[in-house]
Amino acid sequence: MQMIIIMKENASAKQIEAVESKLGEFGFQTHPIYGEKKTIIGAIGDKRALSMNQVLMMEGVDNVVPIMRPYKLAGKELQKEPTVIHVKGVTIGGDNLAVFAGPCAIESQEQFTGVARAVQAAGANILRGGAFKPRSSPYSFAGLEDEGLKIMANAGKELNMPICTEVLDTREVELVAEYADIMQIGARNMQNFKLLREVGKYNKPILLKRGLSSTIEEWLMAAEYIMSEGNEQVILCERGIRTYETSTRNTFDVSAIPVVKELSHLPIIGDPSHAAGTSKYVPAIAKSAIAAGADGLMIEVHNCPEKAMSDGEQSLRPSEFSQLMSELAPIAGAVGKKL
Amino acid sequence: MQMIIIMKENASAKQIEAVESKLGEFGFQTHPIYGEKKTIIGAIGDKRALSMNQVLMMEGVDNVVPIMRPYKLAGKELQKEPTVIHVKGVTIGGDNLAVFAGPCAIESQEQFTGVARAVQAAGANILRGGAFKPRSSPYSFAGLEDEGLKIMANAGKELNMPICTEVLDTREVELVAEYADIMQIGARNMQNFKLLREVGKYNKPILLKRGLSSTIEEWLMAAEYIMSEGNEQVILCERGIRTYETSTRNTFDVSAIPVVKELSHLPIIGDPSHAAGTSKYVPAIAKSAIAAGADGLMIEVHNCPEKAMSDGEQSLRPSEFSQLMSELAPIAGAVGKKL
Amino acid sequence: MQMIIIMKENASAKQIEAVESKLGEFGFQTHPIYGEKKTIIGAIGDKRALSMNQVLMMEGVDNVVPIMRPYKLAGKELQKEPTVIHVKGVTIGGDNLAVFAGPCAIESQEQFTGVARAVQAAGANILRGGAFKPRSSPYSFAGLEDEGLKIMANAGKELNMPICTEVLDTREVELVAEYADIMQIGARNMQNFKLLREVGKYNKPILLKRGLSSTIEEWLMAAEYIMSEGNEQVILCERGIRTYETSTRNTFDVSAIPVVKELSHLPIIGDPSHAAGTSKYVPAIAKSAIAAGADGLMIEVHNCPEKAMSDGEQSLRPSEFSQLMSELAPIAGAVGKKL
Amino acid sequence: MQMIIIMKENASAKQIEAVESKLGEFGFQTHPIYGEKKTIIGAIGDKRALSMNQVLMMEGVDNVVPIMRPYKLAGKELQKEPTVIHVKGVTIGGDNLAVFAGPCAIESQEQFTGVARAVQAAGANILRGGAFKPRSSPYSFAGLEDEGLKIMANAGKELNMPICTEVLDTREVELVAEYADIMQIGARNMQNFKLLREVGKYNKPILLKRGLSSTIEEWLMAAEYIMSEGNEQVILCERGIRTYETSTRNTFDVSAIPVVKELSHLPIIGDPSHAAGTSKYVPAIAKSAIAAGADGLMIEVHNCPEKAMSDGEQSLRPSEFSQLMSELAPIAGAVGKKL
Repeated sequence: MQMIIIMKENASAKQIEAVESKLGEFGFQTHPIYGEKKTIIGAIGDKRALSMNQVLMMEGVDNVVPIMRPYKLAGKELQKEPTVIHVKGVTIGGDNLAVFAGPCAIESQEQFTGVARAVQAAGANILRGGAFKPRSSPYSFAGLEDEGLKIMANAGKELNMPICTEVLDTREVELVAEYADIMQIGARNMQNFKLLREVGKYNKPILLKRGLSSTIEEWLMAAEYIMSEGNEQVILCERGIRTYETSTRNTFDVSAIPVVKELSHLPIIGDPSHAAGTSKYVPAIAKSAIAAGADGLMIEVHNCPEKAMSDGEQSLRPSEFSQLMSELAPIAGAVGKKL
Repeated sequence: MQMIIIMKENASAKQIEAVESKLGEFGFQTHPIYGEKKTIIGAIGDKRALSMNQVLMMEGVDNVVPIMRPYKLAGKELQKEPTVIHVKGVTIGGDNLAVFAGPCAIESQEQFTGVARAVQAAGANILRGGAFKPRSSPYSFAGLEDEGLKIMANAGKELNMPICTEVLDTREVELVAEYADIMQIGARNMQNFKLLREVGKYNKPILLKRGLSSTIEEWLMAAEYIMSEGNEQVILCERGIRTYETSTRNTFDVSAIPVVKELSHLPIIGDPSHAAGTSKYVPAIAKSAIAAGADGLMIEVHNCPEKAMSDGEQSLRPSEFSQLMSELAPIAGAVGKKL
Repeated sequence: MQMIIIMKENASAKQIEAVESKLGEFGFQTHPIYGEKKTIIGAIGDKRALSMNQVLMMEGVDNVVPIMRPYKLAGKELQKEPTVIHVKGVTIGGDNLAVFAGPCAIESQEQFTGVARAVQAAGANILRGGAFKPRSSPYSFAGLEDEGLKIMANAGKELNMPICTEVLDTREVELVAEYADIMQIGARNMQNFKLLREVGKYNKPILLKRGLSSTIEEWLMAAEYIMSEGNEQVILCERGIRTYETSTRNTFDVSAIPVVKELSHLPIIGDPSHAAGTSKYVPAIAKSAIAAGADGLMIEVHNCPEKAMSDGEQSLRPSEFSQLMSELAPIAGAVGKKL
Repeated sequence: MQMIIIMKENASAKQIEAVESKLGEFGFQTHPIYGEKKTIIGAIGDKRALSMNQVLMMEGVDNVVPIMRPYKLAGKELQKEPTVIHVKGVTIGGDNLAVFAGPCAIESQEQFTGVARAVQAAGANILRGGAFKPRSSPYSFAGLEDEGLKIMANAGKELNMPICTEVLDTREVELVAEYADIMQIGARNMQNFKLLREVGKYNKPILLKRGLSSTIEEWLMAAEYIMSEGNEQVILCERGIRTYETSTRNTFDVSAIPVVKELSHLPIIGDPSHAAGTSKYVPAIAKSAIAAGADGLMIEVHNCPEKAMSDGEQSLRPSEFSQLMSELAPIAGAVGKKL
């Protein structure tokens, strides 16, 4: 634990002394540097008992600069090599690209298995689908719930593919964990800390979507929550952030991919469907994510988008998905990945 | 239910017909207008079975414009006069200003009751405090939990003031409801739809903070969730939105106050403490909120901000709070409110 | 000039030495602090020859933290008391509120003088109007240009009021300066550095609008540009920033008022008309700005907004403006200002 | 010209009639649709005399929805096939990738020609460099100006490469046009309408950077300004937009590439250097832009970034640039482009 305290220009000797004394109390060594105008104090200690805010509140203090990043398990300090997750024969992270595909909402066994077969044939290796759906209107279809979980599980068994689905409520984690191979935390729940802690208690990969307006640091702190409970199998998923631009539903932050690769050992995939909000831009964004170094993609596919009960306009048809997969292959090759 | 369908410039007669036919199937009356370049179709119906997206996906369709707002209970269609909430002798909405004050986190009975007495003396009429704290780091102090609820309740009883505290988890609503007079949904949970539904089942006012990057429409839809379960006592709270500006922690969206007043009958208060992130800007923002027509304020006050276990840097000292209250009074008077 | 250099965790002794040596070369004294994990180097010097970026590029360097703010003339280091500007008998800054009012575009002598008389009667003390208009479409009305300047000047002379109008082009500064008492730099030109330098050469107050997505620091640096040419009569104007929220055209950043008051001695006014984009929210935002401590307002008023050639929907009618002025008076009084 | 007028729920028959009558006056045909709750009026006309705002201001009107996009020359209505620009033997648009490379600021003939040779050897086909530099501080190096233009021109002639440089001021367009093969409008000047009109008078390609917080529609309207003066050789350049995320200087909006490709026939390139603000993320972003369908790149390269007088931290070394070019080739191939 290290921090730098920047004193105000007119800070008195007494104020500087008070800060040093306070830091000393908490076991910090202090190193003042007296500038012409401002004094700064370097502080070194290993205790977390003193928060930066407490120092910031002291008289004469202008700013406190932390030296260490706030996350430990999600960062590279303790683990330098990339995390590779294995789930039912599929590898996430490393040289393999993981492709999660399926419809936004699960509507029936026939619909789901039909789409599942099509995406498997095109090269997807993980099934995705929504049984519990977070909907912005209380009057919208909120998913088949338990029934949806069973439908997914049936398809997963039949096609021998792992399944990934979202969990919304701490009370439902146990149920979802029974069926899902990978549990998803949606963007709106990225800072639902109780839910993060709950899924952290399971020995099952967690797909953690980035919050709509979360910084990368907050996102890694959300991963830290899950990991701090013992579950280190976290997969990050960039799905677009909220900006002023309205021609896409959200702005896909492609730079988040190299930034996460620099800061963390966790795998990161891209979700072009939710970012774009319309299927027409999905292929271009999907390609950009792979070219930027993503470990995979999550793509919505529906056999009949016009009739989808949720998010149809952003779903690819199976034939479009198949076409995209064939176009992705050479890009994957160009960045040293296998599709 | 009304919508306008805008066809693409090159839409064929067959595509236009297909859209009309689909709308007809769902019980809509259609009214095409053939422009020189584009055809638009007005559609009138009263069924919610057809989603805009399903129309949007049809060939030849360029855009679909909804005519009605998505919320009903939170809007003014069914209720024109402002909602006024009564809780333990305090009125929220109408001509009275409600002032929620207290420390960010509850630390001990002595601390809490001490602050409570001070804010009551200065004119606050509702106590606020955090028993369950959402913290961005899993290693930070997360509140005294049950113990904190009891401390608040004791102070509330002693001082005869209603208490307001945050609930984070569907599993804890019952517990929090036992102690709190007003339950708070925090910014990070504004779209935790399961939690919204859960608190909607109680007959108790809900303070609903605006999400960090929520639009006003999404915020009113979150209120709609609570109301759709039967609980219509929702108090909105503007607490700053996320923007690129970093000189304040968030940007207090003062315009949200007149916008909400135009769109909804629900009361709205302002939280300058979380918006500013530093106590020095709290008075100016508090005054601006009242001048803009807010129904009250939520302000963090701590007897010793330097030692606060959470968010000390944004807390006013009791003397500063008292000073602010006396400065607010003439502004309240100027906009026809009583403090 | 002071900065702190934070070295990477694995920085070698040689890299640390190289940084110290480079800093020494440029006349800085260096003070290393060796932490358990990271070394930080405090550097004190008075030369601007070395940029932070040059240090940032060196091997082993993780980050460079500046200690001093980048502006000098716009900050409070050299001038602590508030700047008060006097123009044709009107005072901007200090205890008086300056109210700039008038139509967005100047359309005719009759229209302009008519509005001018009405706003003067209601208490406005400065006339505003657009002769050169920045329009987002090349096909929109771009102002009466020279003719518009003359119309404004006539009205100003007749009513004995100073006039304020925007200048868009370095080639037109001389012309505008001939007629205008205050020259305005619009939001879109806030970082048109050549134009800033040009108006900085005149001995005439400059109204500097905040850029649509400018930070407060960038805004003060824009003021610094003008001041560095010798013209220290800069009036800042908050007019809303671009965010994701669409219910107002821009988001009025009311906190910018106390932030600017803390960082700078320059006067700051608010422009609720451009922020809201619709007249219905103008009164609430205007009140909030005054309550937050603004030194004045700029408000669009049009005698017949339905027929305005530009921005009619955000203009108040003279009667609405008059009503607003009477409502503002007690708020002004509450914050110690005269209207 | 077509628009839809949505009346308020309580609009009276008289108000509806007044709107129809006003539209009729301006030569519009009107088509009212009477819904259960709201009336909408479709209006078809070909005159631009009536602005949407004038209708929006009328009593009883809730909203006005435009049916046509505001740009004509920049859109695909009049020109469907992609614009391909030829400049000194280099093709921009179509199947060839254009790579603009060079240092941020021009510092000396030796420096510039050195970098120029290196980037040419690595495969760049256009030289970029700053002679007039927009700097956020008035005290920073603002470029060599005329001298810089000559240096660039010398290098361009020696290496037989077209040169691209920024123009900041209407007064300097003539001078810059004398030397530059492509004139650049920087992000900060994207809505400097006078400058746009001025460069529109030259028969020379214009590189138009997207404004820091400009929507894609505003960007295309800026192109429209240039084109409306007769110069249709506009190259768009995505360079990152301002968001709340701080781990990159700006957020590279990779989706802007497919969006522009859908809306416009103009070529679009990506500038990863300014978006990232640090060289370490430049390769990943450059690859993402090409994969998403960009027509080229603009990349900063400096032979000695540690000593660069401007933006050194975002410049690649020649060896890094050369490495990137070789990694880009297979991605270009995968999307059907030649590098």
